[in-house]
Amino acid sequence: MNLIEALNWRYATKKMNGEAVSEDKVTRIVEAARLAPTSSGLQPFNVLVITDPALRAEIATIANNQSQINDCSHLLVFAAWDNYTEERIRTVFSRMNAERGVPDSATENYVQSLLEVYLNKTATENHHHAAKQAYIAFGMAIAQAAELEVDATPMEGFGNEKLDVLLGLGKYNLKSTTILPLGYRDAAGDWLFNLKKVRKPMENFVITLDK
Amino acid sequence: MNLIEALNWRYATKKMNGEAVSEDKVTRIVEAARLAPTSSGLQPFNVLVITDPALRAEIATIANNQSQINDCSHLLVFAAWDNYTEERIRTVFSRMNAERGVPDSATENYVQSLLEVYLNKTATENHHHAAKQAYIAFGMAIAQAAELEVDATPMEGFGNEKLDVLLGLGKYNLKSTTILPLGYRDAAGDWLFNLKKVRKPMENFVITLDK
Repeated sequence: MNLIEALNWRYATKKMNGEAVSEDKVTRIVEAARLAPTSSGLQPFNVLVITDPALRAEIATIANNQSQINDCSHLLVFAAWDNYTEERIRTVFSRMNAERGVPDSATENYVQSLLEVYLNKTATENHHHAAKQAYIAFGMAIAQAAELEVDATPMEGFGNEKLDVLLGLGKYNLKSTTILPLGYRDAAGDWLFNLKKVRKPMENFVITLDK
Repeated sequence: MNLIEALNWRYATKKMNGEAVSEDKVTRIVEAARLAPTSSGLQPFNVLVITDPALRAEIATIANNQSQINDCSHLLVFAAWDNYTEERIRTVFSRMNAERGVPDSATENYVQSLLEVYLNKTATENHHHAAKQAYIAFGMAIAQAAELEVDATPMEGFGNEKLDVLLGLGKYNLKSTTILPLGYRDAAGDWLFNLKKVRKPMENFVITLDK
């Protein structure tokens, strides 16, 4: 399936059937997120992969009891840096330089320019920026799941702060942004399955400037 | 090319060769963005497609003179709603209901719950949320370009407010979030082309909870 076919195939599955997604498919889905481009290559987020049914049941209670959290086999949690710090930024560039066989001095001016930007912003502003990068990767994971005909339900409607506490994200200096249950549709039991996918018509989506 | 292959093929092209991307490929790239999932299906953003070289040259001056803006053939600008409003939300659901052949009363309770959330937040908070949805679509466009072997350079580093004024986005109640030049790599002239793509190792990217 090409990407357009995959995006037309997928939908925000409301009812999953409990069938497990294979580990190699989950790995590919996470790999697509890992390969996503991010601002300055900082990848300011992590992905948690949660399989434990008891933990997922707890998460469901703080996510409007959406059944997919229980009926999926793997729940991905995207969690973004709570802030940009000098240490985090330098760690990324040190790794990159080591892998490319260049000295850290090669990127020092660029790193300084990033530090000047990020260290002069509030944690809230920086977290918003980091979260936006996580949304690119979230999109890649959704696309990859669809290409593999794995169902996924993108979700924001949960108690972010409660989830951060439940998962202990504070100790990683992360905050949850989105969650993505992975599983398989129960088409017969899903009210959304037979409803037409609706998007803005192209003529309302694209703006062509007169100039 | 499957998605993982496409994501490994792509890179943030620093030098493009001026060759034009065909209109049917640009349409597919925009279509992938249009098909991206968004919170409650609101699609709170638009995409501008800019070809005019003079306008792109003006944009380059407020985007650190990045050469791809001049050397691409199409510049996509992702612009998100400056705020959520009752009219915008109702327009989306009226269209959806009409296409699905159900009365607006079918979604009225859900619409009310959305209004309660969004109309009680500041424009800034709502714009951040809308922008995050645009980043999902931005990711889909990047993935689609790569699948078609079209080069694309995701960019945030520009003067957003200046671009909003230049493009007259205020009259659409939109604010620019990201831009994406589409074109073809000039591999010989691109300092980044031969550098290894570096990402966080999987073991630093995925967090597995002990529980």
